[in-house]
Amino acid sequence: MSLPPIGRRAFVADAAGGLLLCTLAGKQFVLDKPADIDKLAAEVKVPPKVKAAKEKQAQQATQGEVVLASSQKKATGTEYWIQAEQVKWNIVPTGRDQMMGKRVPGKTKFTAYAYRAYSPNFAAALGPATIPGPLIEANVGETITVNFRNQLASPVTMHPHGVQYSQDQDGAYKGKYTDPGGFVQQGDQVTYTWEAIPESEGAWFYHDHGPMDPLPLYKGLLGPMIIRDPNKPQPDKEFFSAFHSFQPAATGLDRPFYCLNGYSYAGNTPTLRANVGDDVAFHVYALDDNFHTFHLHGHRWPDESGKIIDNVTLGPADVITARFTEDNPGRWFYHCHVFTHLHQGMNGWYIVE
Amino acid sequence: MSLPPIGRRAFVADAAGGLLLCTLAGKQFVLDKPADIDKLAAEVKVPPKVKAAKEKQAQQATQGEVVLASSQKKATGTEYWIQAEQVKWNIVPTGRDQMMGKRVPGKTKFTAYAYRAYSPNFAAALGPATIPGPLIEANVGETITVNFRNQLASPVTMHPHGVQYSQDQDGAYKGKYTDPGGFVQQGDQVTYTWEAIPESEGAWFYHDHGPMDPLPLYKGLLGPMIIRDPNKPQPDKEFFSAFHSFQPAATGLDRPFYCLNGYSYAGNTPTLRANVGDDVAFHVYALDDNFHTFHLHGHRWPDESGKIIDNVTLGPADVITARFTEDNPGRWFYHCHVFTHLHQGMNGWYIVE
Amino acid sequence: MSLPPIGRRAFVADAAGGLLLCTLAGKQFVLDKPADIDKLAAEVKVPPKVKAAKEKQAQQATQGEVVLASSQKKATGTEYWIQAEQVKWNIVPTGRDQMMGKRVPGKTKFTAYAYRAYSPNFAAALGPATIPGPLIEANVGETITVNFRNQLASPVTMHPHGVQYSQDQDGAYKGKYTDPGGFVQQGDQVTYTWEAIPESEGAWFYHDHGPMDPLPLYKGLLGPMIIRDPNKPQPDKEFFSAFHSFQPAATGLDRPFYCLNGYSYAGNTPTLRANVGDDVAFHVYALDDNFHTFHLHGHRWPDESGKIIDNVTLGPADVITARFTEDNPGRWFYHCHVFTHLHQGMNGWYIVE
Repeated sequence: MSLPPIGRRAFVADAAGGLLLCTLAGKQFVLDKPADIDKLAAEVKVPPKVKAAKEKQAQQATQGEVVLASSQKKATGTEYWIQAEQVKWNIVPTGRDQMMGKRVPGKTKFTAYAYRAYSPNFAAALGPATIPGPLIEANVGETITVNFRNQLASPVTMHPHGVQYSQDQDGAYKGKYTDPGGFVQQGDQVTYTWEAIPESEGAWFYHDHGPMDPLPLYKGLLGPMIIRDPNKPQPDKEFFSAFHSFQPAATGLDRPFYCLNGYSYAGNTPTLRANVGDDVAFHVYALDDNFHTFHLHGHRWPDESGKIIDNVTLGPADVITARFTEDNPGRWFYHCHVFTHLHQGMNGWYIVE
Repeated sequence: MSLPPIGRRAFVADAAGGLLLCTLAGKQFVLDKPADIDKLAAEVKVPPKVKAAKEKQAQQATQGEVVLASSQKKATGTEYWIQAEQVKWNIVPTGRDQMMGKRVPGKTKFTAYAYRAYSPNFAAALGPATIPGPLIEANVGETITVNFRNQLASPVTMHPHGVQYSQDQDGAYKGKYTDPGGFVQQGDQVTYTWEAIPESEGAWFYHDHGPMDPLPLYKGLLGPMIIRDPNKPQPDKEFFSAFHSFQPAATGLDRPFYCLNGYSYAGNTPTLRANVGDDVAFHVYALDDNFHTFHLHGHRWPDESGKIIDNVTLGPADVITARFTEDNPGRWFYHCHVFTHLHQGMNGWYIVE
Repeated sequence: MSLPPIGRRAFVADAAGGLLLCTLAGKQFVLDKPADIDKLAAEVKVPPKVKAAKEKQAQQATQGEVVLASSQKKATGTEYWIQAEQVKWNIVPTGRDQMMGKRVPGKTKFTAYAYRAYSPNFAAALGPATIPGPLIEANVGETITVNFRNQLASPVTMHPHGVQYSQDQDGAYKGKYTDPGGFVQQGDQVTYTWEAIPESEGAWFYHDHGPMDPLPLYKGLLGPMIIRDPNKPQPDKEFFSAFHSFQPAATGLDRPFYCLNGYSYAGNTPTLRANVGDDVAFHVYALDDNFHTFHLHGHRWPDESGKIIDNVTLGPADVITARFTEDNPGRWFYHCHVFTHLHQGMNGWYIVE
C-alpha cells in the first residue's frame, strides 16, 4: 500500500500533537495512519559493515549465519534460539470487555510480528508465537547467548536492556556505524552475546531497535527478561506485564488498542492468579510512546526507597517490580490509571484464592 | 442532549491523539465534546449481584439501604456520612488569573458532582459541597466506615486508595462481577468498610470507580484521605492538593481547565499559608488523564530516597508528600511545571509570614 | 505578524489535545502555530513595583540598572554577567541524522533567544551565545550573584531551581505582585542574588519565568546550574543535557524539533566522550511540555534509592544525575525512549575509548 504524502499543514498538526511516529526512507509516518512496512523495508540500504560481513560469510560458504566477530559462547551460560516471524493476532479474542460488561466493536485482528522460541538449531518451535516474546532468563555471572533469525520482510533486531554487552552486540541500527547485529535481514541469522553482570540483577526486557524502528516494536517485537541472583529467595508467583499499545500505523486497524501483554480488555488480557501467602512479584515494563501507571486494587507494596505505594508511573522503557506477600483474596483489577488507556483496554484481572 | 455519532475518521484522529475518553453504552466519548451522562446512565443495566441484593433488601423492608454482607463496624474506628450530589460550580470565581494579571475569558460555571460530608444518619450537611470532597482521616489500626448515599442520576461509587479492604468493599464496577458497592444508584445507600493497616500510613485519596467511569470523576468525584501514625509528629500545616482537570466532556464548557482542588488560576485556586518555623506538608495527588509535576518556588524537600528536589512528577493516581521546615517568608507559586497546564490554570499562591 | 483569531471549535480541539500553549495579552497561542512574541511584548504593561523602581532609578541617574533592594553581594561567592540576546540558530547544522543515516528535510534555522556569558561589567562576550546558556557553578555556602541584562524586545528573566532566594530574587512574573527581577525590559539590567545552601547541592537549571512565559523558554532561554560540595569527589567527566524542544509557536518553523542541548539528531546533538575508568556523571533535565526518559545504551547506574536502572522518566523541571564508573568502550546512543521524540531528533552519541 502506498501512502499519500502528508501535506504541510496536516503534518504540522500531527507532529505538534505528538502523532508523528517517525521518518523512514524519506517519508513521514504518523501513529494513526497505516504504514506499509514491507514496502519501506525494501528501500533501506544495507550498511557497509553488514555488507562486508555478508560478503565474507559468502566466501566462507557458511550458510545462513552472519558471524559476529565478538560473539564468544562461554562455558557458564544460557542459550536461546529465537526467530522473528509473522503471526495472526487477535487483540480482543473474546470480543468483550469484562470490566465494563460490554462488547468491543470493530476489527481486532491483524498480522503481527513476534519473537518465537525454538529448540536448538531452530529444530522445532517451543510453542506458538506470542506477544510479548519468550522470557529470557539468566543468573548473575552467566552469559546469555541468543541465536536470532529473522523471517520477516523487514530487517529487525533484538536490543536488550539491563545486561552488559559490547557495542556490536547491542542490536541497534546506527546508520553507517551499524554492525551486523543491528541489521538482520530476512533469512539471516546472528548470535548476540550478553553478560548478566551483578548489576544486571532484576527485571528488564528486549525489543527491536533496527532500521524500521519503532514500527516493528509497534507490531509486537518486544519481550521480557530477568536476571536472578540464585542466592536470594525467588517469588512464588511472578508476572511479567508489558504496558504497550497497538497503533493504526502498525496494525492497519482503525483505532489504537492499549494492551497488557498483547491483549486489550479484562478477560482478554492475562488473568493472573495467586494464593494467599504467596510471595508475589509483578514485573511491569512500558514500551510505547505513552506514559502509564500501574495500579493494583486491594494491595500495596514498597517502592525501591521503601515508600508504600499502590500506583507507580512508568515512562517508555522504565521497568518496576511490585513485590509483596499476598494477603487479600478476591477478584481484583490491575490496570493503567490513565483513564483513556484504561478504557481503551489496559485492564486485567488478578484473582487470589 | 443527544450526541452525534463520531465518524470513523474523526474517531481515529481523536483516539490516536489520546482524546478518546471512554466507550459507554456502546457510544464513544472524547474529552473535548460534551457527554450527556444522565441519559447514558439510564441505559446502564443493574448487575446481577446488585439486583439480588436490592430484592433481598426489599423483602426485609429495610428502606434505602443496600446491606453489604461483609461490612462490619468495628469498635475502634472512624465513621463518615458522605453523599454524592450536584453542586453549581465556578472554576474561576474571581474571573481573573493573578499570575498573568489578566481576565479569564469565557464561561467557567457548570453543574458539577461532589462528595459532601453529613452528620450521622445524614441529619445535616457539615458544610457546602466541595471539590475535592471531605478529607477522610484515620489512625493506623482503625476501621474506616463510610456510609455513602448517592443523590445523582448516575450510578457512582467511592473507591479508596492505600487502605485495605475486601473485594466487595472496593467500590469498583466490574461488569457481571459487580458487588453492590460498585454500583450505587440514585437514592441508594451503601456502607463501605476499609482498614487503616500499618502499611496504609500516608496520604491517599478516593474517587468514583462506577459504571460511568471516568465521567463522574471528571465532574468532581474525588477527595483526599490520610492515615496517620499517632505516635509520630504531625505537621503544623498540612495541605491536600489535587492536580486534576475539568474537561469539556464532563463540564459542557468549551475548553479544558487545569485545576488545583477544583479551581483554576492563582487567586482562585487555594491560597495556602504557613509561618516560618512550621513543619509543613504538601500532600499532592494527580487524578486525570495527564502527567503533572509539582513545583514550589523558593523551597526544596527530600524525596523518599533522601534526594533533595524542588519538582516531582506525578502520573494519574500517584501521590507524594513534600515535607519541610518552613524557612523562607514571601509570596510563592506552587504550580504544575507542564507549561500548557500552568497556563490553563494549574497555579496557586503559597504565602509564608 | 498578526495571528488570525482561533475559532471556538479549533480552539477546543487544540486545547483538549494539550496543544494550547498559553494566553498572552488576551490572545490564545498553540504550540504548532507561530506567535509574534515581539508584538505581544509591546502590549504587556509594566507592573507597579517595577515602574516605581525604574522611576526611583531615573531620579538617581543610575544608568541602565534597576537596583533591587535586597541584592547584597557577599564576600564569598561567584559572580556572573549574563545577557539575554538574539542568536541565529541552526537546530540541525549538518543537515543529517546519523542514527537513521538520512538527510533531515525542511528548514532548521530560526532566530533564537539565548543567555550569553560576559566578562565583568559586560566588557566582552566570553564566547558565542549558546542554547542552553552558560553553566552556573558554585560551592555550597557561596552566594551566586548574577548580573543580568536583557537585549531582547520581550521582557524576560532568570528563574533558578534548587538554590535559596528571597521572593524578590526568584525572577518570576507575578502580575501585580511582580518585583523588578520578574520583569526585565529591553536594555534593563538587574542583579539576582541566590544562595547555594547545603540542601542545594546537586544539578539544577535556570530558565525564563517572565511575562511572556513560556515562549522565551521555547526560543532558547534555559541553562544548567550545579552546586558542588568541594569536600566530595567530583566526576572526571560531566555532561549537562537539556531534554527540550523547539516548537513552531517559538521558531516559526513548520514542525517541532526534539532537542538535546539545542540541537536535533545524532551528529548534531552533543557527541559526548569519556574514557574507560572515568567517573562519569550525566546531569539531565527536562524543560518543555513533554515527559521524557533518558536512556543510555550499554550502561547502568544506581538511582537515588540504589536501584540499578538504564532508563529514567523526567517530567518538565525534573533533573536527574546518572553517575557510574566507565567500563564499556564503544559508540553508544543516549536518547529519549519516547519513540516520537527519539525520531524527531532526541538522540546523540556517547563515545568511550
